[in-house]
Amino acid sequence: MSGACAEGEDVILYLDERRNYLVKVRPGQDFHTDKGFIHLSELVGLRYGSRITTSLGNEFTVLKPTIRDYVMKAGRATQIMYPKDIGIALVHLGVGPGSRVVEAGTGSGALTSVLAYYVKPSGRVFSYEIRSEFTERARRNLERAGLLEYVELKSGDIIVKIDERDVDAIMLDLATPWLGVRNAYEALRGGGGFASFSPTVEQVVKTVEALRGCGFVCVETVECLLRRIKVKAGETRPETLMIGHTGYLSFARKGLR
Amino acid sequence: MSGACAEGEDVILYLDERRNYLVKVRPGQDFHTDKGFIHLSELVGLRYGSRITTSLGNEFTVLKPTIRDYVMKAGRATQIMYPKDIGIALVHLGVGPGSRVVEAGTGSGALTSVLAYYVKPSGRVFSYEIRSEFTERARRNLERAGLLEYVELKSGDIIVKIDERDVDAIMLDLATPWLGVRNAYEALRGGGGFASFSPTVEQVVKTVEALRGCGFVCVETVECLLRRIKVKAGETRPETLMIGHTGYLSFARKGLR
Amino acid sequence: MSGACAEGEDVILYLDERRNYLVKVRPGQDFHTDKGFIHLSELVGLRYGSRITTSLGNEFTVLKPTIRDYVMKAGRATQIMYPKDIGIALVHLGVGPGSRVVEAGTGSGALTSVLAYYVKPSGRVFSYEIRSEFTERARRNLERAGLLEYVELKSGDIIVKIDERDVDAIMLDLATPWLGVRNAYEALRGGGGFASFSPTVEQVVKTVEALRGCGFVCVETVECLLRRIKVKAGETRPETLMIGHTGYLSFARKGLR
Amino acid sequence: MSGACAEGEDVILYLDERRNYLVKVRPGQDFHTDKGFIHLSELVGLRYGSRITTSLGNEFTVLKPTIRDYVMKAGRATQIMYPKDIGIALVHLGVGPGSRVVEAGTGSGALTSVLAYYVKPSGRVFSYEIRSEFTERARRNLERAGLLEYVELKSGDIIVKIDERDVDAIMLDLATPWLGVRNAYEALRGGGGFASFSPTVEQVVKTVEALRGCGFVCVETVECLLRRIKVKAGETRPETLMIGHTGYLSFARKGLR
Repeated sequence: MSGACAEGEDVILYLDERRNYLVKVRPGQDFHTDKGFIHLSELVGLRYGSRITTSLGNEFTVLKPTIRDYVMKAGRATQIMYPKDIGIALVHLGVGPGSRVVEAGTGSGALTSVLAYYVKPSGRVFSYEIRSEFTERARRNLERAGLLEYVELKSGDIIVKIDERDVDAIMLDLATPWLGVRNAYEALRGGGGFASFSPTVEQVVKTVEALRGCGFVCVETVECLLRRIKVKAGETRPETLMIGHTGYLSFARKGLR
Repeated sequence: MSGACAEGEDVILYLDERRNYLVKVRPGQDFHTDKGFIHLSELVGLRYGSRITTSLGNEFTVLKPTIRDYVMKAGRATQIMYPKDIGIALVHLGVGPGSRVVEAGTGSGALTSVLAYYVKPSGRVFSYEIRSEFTERARRNLERAGLLEYVELKSGDIIVKIDERDVDAIMLDLATPWLGVRNAYEALRGGGGFASFSPTVEQVVKTVEALRGCGFVCVETVECLLRRIKVKAGETRPETLMIGHTGYLSFARKGLR
Repeated sequence: MSGACAEGEDVILYLDERRNYLVKVRPGQDFHTDKGFIHLSELVGLRYGSRITTSLGNEFTVLKPTIRDYVMKAGRATQIMYPKDIGIALVHLGVGPGSRVVEAGTGSGALTSVLAYYVKPSGRVFSYEIRSEFTERARRNLERAGLLEYVELKSGDIIVKIDERDVDAIMLDLATPWLGVRNAYEALRGGGGFASFSPTVEQVVKTVEALRGCGFVCVETVECLLRRIKVKAGETRPETLMIGHTGYLSFARKGLR
Repeated sequence: MSGACAEGEDVILYLDERRNYLVKVRPGQDFHTDKGFIHLSELVGLRYGSRITTSLGNEFTVLKPTIRDYVMKAGRATQIMYPKDIGIALVHLGVGPGSRVVEAGTGSGALTSVLAYYVKPSGRVFSYEIRSEFTERARRNLERAGLLEYVELKSGDIIVKIDERDVDAIMLDLATPWLGVRNAYEALRGGGGFASFSPTVEQVVKTVEALRGCGFVCVETVECLLRRIKVKAGETRPETLMIGHTGYLSFARKGLR
């Protein structure tokens, strides 16, 4: 990881919690905000963590994007799985360097990116999607984040067929995950981990009942409430508004019959 | 990852949510539970995911431990950082394969293990601890989990000194994290990530004020409430008892002054 | 409300959060705790709020029981509706002095007591129960709390029939509340409030769908998470364990068709 | 409680969760919404619960306002204590018919209204406010809700002086509640209940420490998270956005020294 911005790279320009942007360093272009504009050419060679002043005198900090920045900035339209849920699922399943993971659906590639980031360099993500327009968008997002080489983007429906065998983990973010449970079972190695993310209770019930009826063990469901705290001496309190629900996470591991 | 149990390896013997055990496969020994005993020699050569029957006729599933199993089973005495908090912090900081991370204190090595698992093979964890008895215990836990080679266990106090420079991230699980903020700043690369885990509000306030006064940006604090759901058609409901608090997570990134 | 303890009255003897007891003042008897015993005769004439010393030298505070004390101390075996849920429902429905309220089932009379306490002196609670052994127990609990005169304990099933008409509110704490929705509609005055308390999601879905299909408006469902905070300068934090679920509250008001 | 709308009364006109209004029945006037207007004269004589059709053909339901409707509709500018918090505090303190309660500050009179509603007909609320413009506004709100006769609106600072003695309960919704703890103690009867509502942790810590140092027992602090559930067969889930924080409730009872 180089310590300075280079042409063509992505950076985060951070002013405050609401004003922070994922920007590609294109010399010759300007980046405009309500706090003034920045000549992107000035970023080249700047060390990460440096401050840069806009035309209106506001100081943005220049940061190298983390994998979480890519998730939060890319594809909000379709994305429902938040970093908090992804982090919990990663550790729950033990998905890490070297893991071979099946994912469906690809969507905008947000979860795909995080999985690729964590299984690299020797692991691999097999990501299924039935809507080809999403696959192309995910490909661009993965390429941008430098993670495409760890992913096999597949056009197909895991409810119909999963090509892989003996994978370490499967993660589903689908409208009807219960229909994929049988194929997930076939694709996993013994003891391999299953995770499904669903917004509604009814999806969870159907998925969990399918898991129990199909040789899975360690079946459990959780939800994660993340609350932000405003911290300041004398005025510390949780924020008034919070995200009260993203979805439920159901986990299981394959037992051999 | 081999598909079958071998002598000297760890396995999880799983019956249900309350009865699941981390056991080393030592042929010649028996493992006793309130549901009967298991001859450990019978585990050798068994494929992961298989079932094994106790002397009383109960079927345990044999699973390869995940990194989460090691966290949940090892060192509960001192451990306060749960897998949910670790997962959220990992993704928030972007700690992954290749990351160089400073951690303090080592404690029983639970967080150390997860960090090592995720930075391997090319990254490295520098873990500081001032109580030497903990360092030895952590060394055993890391060795057991096969992760010792990715960790440098250091006897020392990060409040006094951090030897490393340009590290990607720092994670503190200390009684007085605010006293480590200045040294953390010096050790991090520009834009590098800081996380601190603290049970009390007062710790959080002091740490956040120290971060703000010291050149950090993107300062924020969250708490994660994980709620387990009992899922069964017709009887679905959150569990009656839950862990209502583990600790607060405070995050920041180093801005250059 | 008299300011001093009298023979035959109930008092709360409070040492700390775990050691506090609802005790009837029976001169001639002793009350034993793990912190020593108290001669109950010494309570007579004591002002509420006073301290009394046990045989082992521990000081209990003598308190007049609130309606919440009666709820928390009586009938834990069957009770699932907590004071937090009752308080929220009372204010949501506007049940107060003068209200005429139908309740089912009576159970141990915990909710009945609170309703009676709040509708007195001119209101009335009509409480239905199909299990006669519960009715008797509830009668004793109501008598003990001095609230029996505001309650009509009825042996019957509101799913079959509700005798009253034009009541201000109906509160159900039943296994199958959706079966009572039609009769509840008939019994309520126009605009009258309905509340149902249910532990499972499936109960909620059936009840809400019944309410929507039956002329109710303002249909909504909430759950209340009450978290206790340990407060002490320098050590303030939410408690580790909390009640993660008691039940869902579904509310509605009768619209005329 | 009469069953039909009369001239000069308040009604709630309810279309859905977002479109519901507190309106005074003034014949000769129209009430305009984005779903059409209503001739208010048509409301006179209408039974509560009836539907009324707007000029654009939308059906509103006509409801008699509950005390909660008054809280939710009046004085949102200053109000921070929600019905959920008020309901929990009422039951916790046992404030009910006949109770004598001191409150500070009056603010827009939202909490005052609920207290008055619950202590009537024989109880009384003594409500202190130092900002006279608020007192006038509260007077209008109480008059509108028909509850003024149960309230004594007082211009004064409870930190300086509370005139009443032997009151059953005291509720504080102040910026500096800890400064009122000593006077609250003097005003309460033995065993009487204290509640304070505060948004920040620092307020809570100071208040609780003051309570402990001043002869109060049963000191405890809670926070209430109310989560709304979207209920529909096949699509049941908690709402995405929720109020994550209103304030902390600290409770205590007066022990005699």
